[in-house]
Amino acid sequence: MDYKVEHIGIAVKDLDTSIPLFEQLLGSPCYKTESVDSEAVNTAFFLQQSTKIELLESSNPEGPIAKFINKKGEGMHHIAFEVPDIVAEMERLKKLGFTLLNETPKKGADNKLICFVHPKVTNGVLIELCQSID
Amino acid sequence: MDYKVEHIGIAVKDLDTSIPLFEQLLGSPCYKTESVDSEAVNTAFFLQQSTKIELLESSNPEGPIAKFINKKGEGMHHIAFEVPDIVAEMERLKKLGFTLLNETPKKGADNKLICFVHPKVTNGVLIELCQSID
Repeated sequence: MDYKVEHIGIAVKDLDTSIPLFEQLLGSPCYKTESVDSEAVNTAFFLQQSTKIELLESSNPEGPIAKFINKKGEGMHHIAFEVPDIVAEMERLKKLGFTLLNETPKKGADNKLICFVHPKVTNGVLIELCQSID
Repeated sequence: MDYKVEHIGIAVKDLDTSIPLFEQLLGSPCYKTESVDSEAVNTAFFLQQSTKIELLESSNPEGPIAKFINKKGEGMHHIAFEVPDIVAEMERLKKLGFTLLNETPKKGADNKLICFVHPKVTNGVLIELCQSID
């Protein structure tokens, strides 16, 4: 495979402070914010050439991002690879013994179908597969 | 700025098991390994389009990767941005109040000059600046 790193997800406590911080750090503006209620996240996007940086803030104290920050602190949360056929890629990984966190693709931010691979079998790295919805 | 995500660094305990694991996960071969004695790391590289995935194994039990794994477990370690002029970028960030982990660029893996930005001021994300040495 030769899948693009579509984005890198970063868990933050508070977008209101992290957006201007990353605008300074990256020297580029946040071009979009979006809330995904089903994932309990508010997101903010930056573009660095063809790779996006996605800041993730929990929209409720029980959401997965809040739990991640409670356990590990703020920081890098996941790597997302753009795949042309998410169902085929999910099948390929399942056959290889990887554990998927959802059995069918679900709707994520940025108009994408997504699926996560369990980090327990990928050296602690949460991998997201994503496919753009046309 | 519009800097490319040159690579994503991932801390692992053991390259001998993680290299075949990531070859399966990414569906692409490890194309290079390299040891950097000054950083106490052994590295292994994968290429996903224009972004590299760099696995990092500590070459001694007191090295920074060993300490990271002891504290946080295996997982995503840093994001590296390719910059055209590392000294100028270091100056830009210092003026903005970011803390750099080294005052002058140092030699890293993959024939690059590198500098790290302290994660305490970047929401826990360790950022590497890198510039290819011609």
